[in-house]
Amino acid sequence: MSADFKPTARSKVKRLHKRAHYDRATVYAIIDAAVLAHVGYVIDGQPFVTPTNIWREGDRVLWHGSMASRMLKTVREGVPVCVTITHLDGLVMARSAFHHSVNYRSAMLFGRAEMVTDKAAKARALEAFVERVAPGRWATLRPMTAQELKGTMVVGMTIDEAAAKVRTGPPVDDEPDYALPIWAGVVPLTLTAGQPIADPRVATGTPVPSSLARYDIEAYGREAPRADAAG
Amino acid sequence: MSADFKPTARSKVKRLHKRAHYDRATVYAIIDAAVLAHVGYVIDGQPFVTPTNIWREGDRVLWHGSMASRMLKTVREGVPVCVTITHLDGLVMARSAFHHSVNYRSAMLFGRAEMVTDKAAKARALEAFVERVAPGRWATLRPMTAQELKGTMVVGMTIDEAAAKVRTGPPVDDEPDYALPIWAGVVPLTLTAGQPIADPRVATGTPVPSSLARYDIEAYGREAPRADAAG
Repeated sequence: MSADFKPTARSKVKRLHKRAHYDRATVYAIIDAAVLAHVGYVIDGQPFVTPTNIWREGDRVLWHGSMASRMLKTVREGVPVCVTITHLDGLVMARSAFHHSVNYRSAMLFGRAEMVTDKAAKARALEAFVERVAPGRWATLRPMTAQELKGTMVVGMTIDEAAAKVRTGPPVDDEPDYALPIWAGVVPLTLTAGQPIADPRVATGTPVPSSLARYDIEAYGREAPRADAAG
Repeated sequence: MSADFKPTARSKVKRLHKRAHYDRATVYAIIDAAVLAHVGYVIDGQPFVTPTNIWREGDRVLWHGSMASRMLKTVREGVPVCVTITHLDGLVMARSAFHHSVNYRSAMLFGRAEMVTDKAAKARALEAFVERVAPGRWATLRPMTAQELKGTMVVGMTIDEAAAKVRTGPPVDDEPDYALPIWAGVVPLTLTAGQPIADPRVATGTPVPSSLARYDIEAYGREAPRADAAG
């Protein structure tokens, strides 16, 4: 793994420095636990924030979409981009309103995107995306056509700078407030996957592939599905 | 409720028009189901996307933070802002890679933020935020001090333009592909709340307030906690 990110004027966390992380392991774990990111870009001074699905390959994040997408047409020009990923992990209920907070893991990634133009590289990137979400699925699908590949834009952004911010644990209250008879603690939040719902046009008896068994989405890219969610 | 939003050059959904919605009921339901938003703003041509907690009051969204926050110091100046909220509702597994998709509800809100400077209005806004997450909690807390109120910045943004984009339902495959023996369907995803975890310093026997009983976070601002999650 390359050297850690260096905090810059752009990426340095200004508030609550103790929550800041610049090491690649932390940043990449936050990326790899997500399928959703928010891509920020500027058109004529106006910021836009577009949700999209992302995945990571080494020091790059990739995302894709239609050739007609305004977001993709803008970012492929190499303009500055900010990609932010956030996992909301809990509501932190303190003894005073002021110390209420949330537990979260977020990563802010800075760079410039470029189109993946090589056909083979583009096909491999799309395969990697499907495989990440459902390992083993790509080989079972109706193969991608040349026209589909042509109509899909894939962009990659080398992460030039990045900062992660993480809060975990119980509330941190003012010392005298701990004596108050107020319940305080955390309501944990998790993005959870339910049982797959078959398309009504799937033939009766078609088994749900094991890659789509109910699992903890937080496990993406990090570890095998949790045993307790594999039913 | 005011008239619906009018699609403009800025807000009009460019791709997949059938997923677009400009009515306030749809946009507001997406906002009210969320506690997390991504705020986009520009500093010297560089886009930034900062995650933050938001809430809505009528035609405005509000968010808050420290007086030292770079994001808040920027947006309070009345620069163009884009606030995006996204709920990831499912992974859509089709019979071809091309038609894989996600189910989601997203809203992109455009406007300019301004500081809430009136002390009473600011206190009311913060109370509304806590009450939204945990109805009835505000009155049970150690009261907010003048210094805490002073150190907290609240900004509000009247939503000038907005667009929602929603995808639901099973995959839409190419007609010939339906005959293939490939499982297709949706893996539903939900942000779920677990049992509250008490701060270790809470006195034994302090009851978990009913406002924090396990509930479906999607219900925020819309309806009472679901009966099946009230345990």
